[in-house]
Amino acid sequence: MRAEQIAEAFPVVRCDSDALAAVRLMAEQRLPGLLVIDRQGRPSRILPASQVVRLLVPAYVLDDPPLAGVLSEITADRVADKLSGKTVEQVVAQSPARMAAVNADDTIVEVAAVMARERSPLVAVVSGEQLIGVITAARLLEAALAAR
Amino acid sequence: MRAEQIAEAFPVVRCDSDALAAVRLMAEQRLPGLLVIDRQGRPSRILPASQVVRLLVPAYVLDDPPLAGVLSEITADRVADKLSGKTVEQVVAQSPARMAAVNADDTIVEVAAVMARERSPLVAVVSGEQLIGVITAARLLEAALAAR
Repeated sequence: MRAEQIAEAFPVVRCDSDALAAVRLMAEQRLPGLLVIDRQGRPSRILPASQVVRLLVPAYVLDDPPLAGVLSEITADRVADKLSGKTVEQVVAQSPARMAAVNADDTIVEVAAVMARERSPLVAVVSGEQLIGVITAARLLEAALAAR
Repeated sequence: MRAEQIAEAFPVVRCDSDALAAVRLMAEQRLPGLLVIDRQGRPSRILPASQVVRLLVPAYVLDDPPLAGVLSEITADRVADKLSGKTVEQVVAQSPARMAAVNADDTIVEVAAVMARERSPLVAVVSGEQLIGVITAARLLEAALAAR
């Protein structure tokens, strides 16, 4: 089995689209992460769910986690306001630009190794610069179990 | 909003249950990870999906990723065989024992900060040693968006 055989369609988010809409897409579809494409439609970045959540955390709390405890409940509840009116690329600019990608002809073990190393629950399957699809961790496990 | 208000039920996996069954549960239900409980029913470990996938990768490939490329496709396909006949605790023994947990009265920001720091798409909500429920990244984002 090769990566292109188990790749699936997956919603993509353009780098210049609305950040709140992107987060809403992830929440509503319970996606394991976001795949961001650039203006030319090329995959540019994968944000695992835990790193999308990170976008909600104020910078001073990331630097000093105990500070989260001093925020009032009302302030904490309004945490998504900081994404308002911004594009995806504006809010992800501070995160490391990681792009977990595999080649179309990679095997299950190669895909699993990239996922594990990048700590990413999804990888983009590419051929050259073209996006062929996405493999999620659940999909990979399903394929591995089916092949036994 | 406090953690206990947004916590949800989530399938748990006992440390002495069958490893293949646990992986199958994750694949079939498309869970973002596994929550492992000990023999006393206390939450003991959370494995994000990417770290469950890691269980499929042979140790020599983890040490030297290019070796994944020299495995034949047939060998790679049979990667789940290594979990066969083993318990969850046997296969996770090599992974760091991480347990992303929050208190029942933690705010959304405190939950988000733990998820981001642990790079975990799910956290256990506990009161003392008792498991109250689980918050996934998607659930947290949903709650944060609803509170705006």
